[in-house]
Amino acid sequence: MRSVSAFRFLTSGPSDVASLAQLLSNGNLRAADLVCILGKTEGNGGRNDHSRELAMRALEELLAPLLGVRREAVQDRVILSFSGGTEGVVTPHMVAFSQHGNWRQTRAPHKRLVIGTGATRAFAAEEIGRMAQVQETARAITEIVAGLHLDSPQDVHLVQMKGAIPTATYAQELAAQQRGQPLRSNMIYSRGASALGAALALGELAPESAARLADDAICADYSLYSGVASVSAKPGLLRTEIMVFANSAYADGELVIGHTVMRDILDTQSVRSLLSELGLPCEGQLTELQRQRLVAVLAKSEADPRGSIRGCRHTMLSDDDISDTRYSRCVLASVLASLTGDPAVYVSTRAEHHGPQGGGPVAILVKAG
Amino acid sequence: MRSVSAFRFLTSGPSDVASLAQLLSNGNLRAADLVCILGKTEGNGGRNDHSRELAMRALEELLAPLLGVRREAVQDRVILSFSGGTEGVVTPHMVAFSQHGNWRQTRAPHKRLVIGTGATRAFAAEEIGRMAQVQETARAITEIVAGLHLDSPQDVHLVQMKGAIPTATYAQELAAQQRGQPLRSNMIYSRGASALGAALALGELAPESAARLADDAICADYSLYSGVASVSAKPGLLRTEIMVFANSAYADGELVIGHTVMRDILDTQSVRSLLSELGLPCEGQLTELQRQRLVAVLAKSEADPRGSIRGCRHTMLSDDDISDTRYSRCVLASVLASLTGDPAVYVSTRAEHHGPQGGGPVAILVKAG
Amino acid sequence: MRSVSAFRFLTSGPSDVASLAQLLSNGNLRAADLVCILGKTEGNGGRNDHSRELAMRALEELLAPLLGVRREAVQDRVILSFSGGTEGVVTPHMVAFSQHGNWRQTRAPHKRLVIGTGATRAFAAEEIGRMAQVQETARAITEIVAGLHLDSPQDVHLVQMKGAIPTATYAQELAAQQRGQPLRSNMIYSRGASALGAALALGELAPESAARLADDAICADYSLYSGVASVSAKPGLLRTEIMVFANSAYADGELVIGHTVMRDILDTQSVRSLLSELGLPCEGQLTELQRQRLVAVLAKSEADPRGSIRGCRHTMLSDDDISDTRYSRCVLASVLASLTGDPAVYVSTRAEHHGPQGGGPVAILVKAG
Amino acid sequence: MRSVSAFRFLTSGPSDVASLAQLLSNGNLRAADLVCILGKTEGNGGRNDHSRELAMRALEELLAPLLGVRREAVQDRVILSFSGGTEGVVTPHMVAFSQHGNWRQTRAPHKRLVIGTGATRAFAAEEIGRMAQVQETARAITEIVAGLHLDSPQDVHLVQMKGAIPTATYAQELAAQQRGQPLRSNMIYSRGASALGAALALGELAPESAARLADDAICADYSLYSGVASVSAKPGLLRTEIMVFANSAYADGELVIGHTVMRDILDTQSVRSLLSELGLPCEGQLTELQRQRLVAVLAKSEADPRGSIRGCRHTMLSDDDISDTRYSRCVLASVLASLTGDPAVYVSTRAEHHGPQGGGPVAILVKAG
Repeated sequence: MRSVSAFRFLTSGPSDVASLAQLLSNGNLRAADLVCILGKTEGNGGRNDHSRELAMRALEELLAPLLGVRREAVQDRVILSFSGGTEGVVTPHMVAFSQHGNWRQTRAPHKRLVIGTGATRAFAAEEIGRMAQVQETARAITEIVAGLHLDSPQDVHLVQMKGAIPTATYAQELAAQQRGQPLRSNMIYSRGASALGAALALGELAPESAARLADDAICADYSLYSGVASVSAKPGLLRTEIMVFANSAYADGELVIGHTVMRDILDTQSVRSLLSELGLPCEGQLTELQRQRLVAVLAKSEADPRGSIRGCRHTMLSDDDISDTRYSRCVLASVLASLTGDPAVYVSTRAEHHGPQGGGPVAILVKAG
Repeated sequence: MRSVSAFRFLTSGPSDVASLAQLLSNGNLRAADLVCILGKTEGNGGRNDHSRELAMRALEELLAPLLGVRREAVQDRVILSFSGGTEGVVTPHMVAFSQHGNWRQTRAPHKRLVIGTGATRAFAAEEIGRMAQVQETARAITEIVAGLHLDSPQDVHLVQMKGAIPTATYAQELAAQQRGQPLRSNMIYSRGASALGAALALGELAPESAARLADDAICADYSLYSGVASVSAKPGLLRTEIMVFANSAYADGELVIGHTVMRDILDTQSVRSLLSELGLPCEGQLTELQRQRLVAVLAKSEADPRGSIRGCRHTMLSDDDISDTRYSRCVLASVLASLTGDPAVYVSTRAEHHGPQGGGPVAILVKAG
Repeated sequence: MRSVSAFRFLTSGPSDVASLAQLLSNGNLRAADLVCILGKTEGNGGRNDHSRELAMRALEELLAPLLGVRREAVQDRVILSFSGGTEGVVTPHMVAFSQHGNWRQTRAPHKRLVIGTGATRAFAAEEIGRMAQVQETARAITEIVAGLHLDSPQDVHLVQMKGAIPTATYAQELAAQQRGQPLRSNMIYSRGASALGAALALGELAPESAARLADDAICADYSLYSGVASVSAKPGLLRTEIMVFANSAYADGELVIGHTVMRDILDTQSVRSLLSELGLPCEGQLTELQRQRLVAVLAKSEADPRGSIRGCRHTMLSDDDISDTRYSRCVLASVLASLTGDPAVYVSTRAEHHGPQGGGPVAILVKAG
Repeated sequence: MRSVSAFRFLTSGPSDVASLAQLLSNGNLRAADLVCILGKTEGNGGRNDHSRELAMRALEELLAPLLGVRREAVQDRVILSFSGGTEGVVTPHMVAFSQHGNWRQTRAPHKRLVIGTGATRAFAAEEIGRMAQVQETARAITEIVAGLHLDSPQDVHLVQMKGAIPTATYAQELAAQQRGQPLRSNMIYSRGASALGAALALGELAPESAARLADDAICADYSLYSGVASVSAKPGLLRTEIMVFANSAYADGELVIGHTVMRDILDTQSVRSLLSELGLPCEGQLTELQRQRLVAVLAKSEADPRGSIRGCRHTMLSDDDISDTRYSRCVLASVLASLTGDPAVYVSTRAEHHGPQGGGPVAILVKAG
């Protein structure tokens, strides 16, 4: 029966793929079943973070012969999604997801994790950060969701995306300016429009909110947001790559996913409620037994762009020595790890239209009780 | 009746003393009653952190005319203890403590916060980081404690110190090496020996532990530690300056202090227990009403020197872009703020013999219920 | 007779004003004669650089009683211009300039340094970064220059400015957007427009270039530039403060100033030519005797925004650990110090319309031979 | 006839080996002739610099099939020596050296570049940083030099080494302490002892200096040094890997190498003299024609550990935001590039016993005129 398995590894460095290699060689995991590998590496998470490329290269080299493809083609088969920055307590780690088997013919009594992947069509630079990107992203997500045997879009708890940023020519830039629609083909707008695409596809926007969705609202009206999107954006990428994590009554396996939206970076109550929903109610911190059921915690962080948290000034955005992305990842990972007691947290930064300003989505995967 | 008052201010920058100036000018606080001012400023907390000096200079300039002394003499009257580094959610702030009135003649039904200050004699460079420093520090603390009308040393919950680091001549260095006792006149040893001085003075060491206390155990045997010390060390300082925060049955006022020792940097349970002891039991985060009773949270942080937390590798100590001190302050402040919901946390770093390795002491001041 | 004197001090820290205090107390320098003090302090040169405020505060405190004004009013009498960032070989230092005496009635055989100071009128936020700022800055410079008994504007070799950045209200911002002229009240535009104001005032633009000067050319057409401007910009400042350094035949004293424009950050030939003009021709490095005639070297640096230097990719602009401003200051100061052999170099960063892209102006003050 | 060829590539990122791949595929370079590849990558040059590993992995992957070995075995055939940190003007680049042909039977009228490689025996942790390491390193260098057909050791101009740092067990550490000879198996001592090994092998120490060479002089008596060593040290490496660059009258080809020792980080005169010796005399900067003859500039930098340069305090060593290694590389590379006009400079840091304190060795490779 169709089911997803997750394998979590701590690494000794970005190129450490020894644990995965062992799993593959001893037959506990078939390369052909791999859907995606998510990981945190110990770079700075910025433009000059070479730890992600190193990790992906090591994985490609491991998987290419097993998949029977060239190294460069591995990512056509297995999505590699790496986020740099293991600030504070975060431990460098990766989680590999495999999926196989046929869908159940009939509903199971419990819903279980399923993963769907896909991509948008290639974008023109003019479309990025505008409704064209929002709508095509929504279309692609809707199509993926349609294949997942869900009861409703509310069964989707995480839409992990790599947002497209096609490179623009100077002529395109000029033409766009002359049209009065300057190009938005950058990380900020690609993340923002992708997240709004998820919100649109999954019905996260109330009708009166959806009515405000327009070019001018993108990266401007932050009352519009998704609670399940997690987007990074990659210069040069033409299509947005999409992974949908959801629970289906037509799947088996032991994994379940849930999500919540933190109101601000200290909003632990939302996370506690989510843990409770997932069968891990706790006062204080998860117990050792509860922690053994925890598979992954994935979240998006943002130093509140308004410069204060709960009425108190913060200094993350005015520090010219250290990027606010490093601070906000460190804060949120610490907050989450203090709830779970587990330093293997996946927090990535920049969260335009991912939850409310200063807050953001959190997804948690657990082994069903 | 003798009582301590605390005044907390958020600041708009290191030199912002406007709120304190207003309190002093409208008569709500008398400069002569000030005992000490603790604060967090937004520098890097390292050697080239000029935000602390800027804050202290602004305070000195404000207080000098009110105390009738020269600017340079203000700190003989009011201890200024500033810690740089407001990483993550931490909001730059200061807390001014004033104390006045006579001791009660008879025990009150409740114990209340009292503060005692003092100093060691001047140290020779040879004494730093050795038993001479431990013992003289213990003596000075014992003397201060004796004046505080406590029931027992267990009423002491915070010993905030600026550790002496007398400058050594080259001749002293050579002579020390030739004696086989190389100088230890640096921050690490001064902090370590000062903390052990507190542990000795307050009976924190079990007899078999106290028996191991020796030159060789300082900054080596980390099973010996204090749970109430908080030491920074200052090159050029000859005497260690000491502030003792304790609860006395012979004082009034509305403030009470307590402390705990975190086992590691994610040990929230110890802090929850302390909050509960102080009348602020909480599942999750303090409520708004509870938070109004919170006056100050002071803690010492350390990136676990063994390189892992709960069995998982951390990367704080192998990052050549960002100091581990910035990470560990960010983590611990986030953990504490996620419990209290309050970003005005005072965390300072480096914690030799302050709690067990990777953990550390936390003191909390509240308004009595 | 009217003459300028310069006093150069190395400092042991941002608040070290001991050398200046001594000069003032032993009568070698009268506080009333001080025109300005320029200095480099060891901060990061960014938004959270507190070393500049600390230095200025220490100077204000020293000078206030000598000038008979409140500390806050010192800068109305003496311009304090501090630049953070002593990367690499740069030594923290300050140079105090005093000026006194009456103008000569007749031309002297040699021209000597004179300093004029002044300010623009207060700007509205709408004017910043637009022709209104350029023209008013040009007017104010022209007025100052008129008082300096120069033969021509070509006698001006340095126009040091603190550019205005009036704070805009949200209403102003909206109104400006609706007019199709979004506010430019930020550091980039204020520096750019101020530099163009200098270029305009001093006839640095050829007629066909001057004809292109317009709102749309500001921070866009970098073929327009000044070779003598040096602008920093300060949020909250309403008026641009201006210091003009020039050589006049109606002044005495021993100081002379000259300037050049580096074509790129490795263009040492231009600086060699300038040294030669100033009577310090050198192959290799200045000799010790020549170096004794050197008073100050002031330059503006910029990591070439096109991402390469002499056809080779540089990585200053894609490093998320260290700001490009720190790199470019370090590079240019090293290049200049390797010519003079003197680590007391004043390099400040960001150079919109200061020389060509990737290059910038250099002014050198020497004792006349 | 035996000759060395050098191929220099600018890279677009650490894993960019496209230019080398093209050379290898079009037959202009045979993989079997490759001796070593030196390169600068844009990491931080510290412990968490993953750019070096990424570059070496990309090279290994390229070369393995051409050499007919597994990826992991490439470095047994071709030495890869990468240094992180392209601060300031430095452009990421690599230089590949190939060598082939038989030695000339008779002296040529001119000496030409030859390269010899080899290694020490494996070291015990106890030997590192002590005379055992110095002597074995000297022996290995002497052996390599013996094979290079030199007239004298003075024909050696660069000894590039990766210093061994065998990992010690806790038992070894304890035993060493009890012997009174605490382990020195770290980067500092391995670099220092390796450099002294070169000085000893090549007769760089005058007899009275050589007499002082002893365990206690290593990393203590900095008047002893090599002018041709360039050592990095690598934890876990058992043997020190050695490349000797020298000029031989029994080789052909167009390359020549020379070296000098800078007295301090601003000592341009020494470098000018070296350029002149190599046939590139220049006032100011090399001309374009001269620059075409430049193949590589390799140097070692160090922020003067005494805290000042030419009597002026520097702040490289007291900055807790940025490592002094990044500053000193940036300074020296800027100084060298300002002489040559070429941003492809290879500067690596930490220079114990490499030239005098605050100075260091510089080697330059050129095409013979």
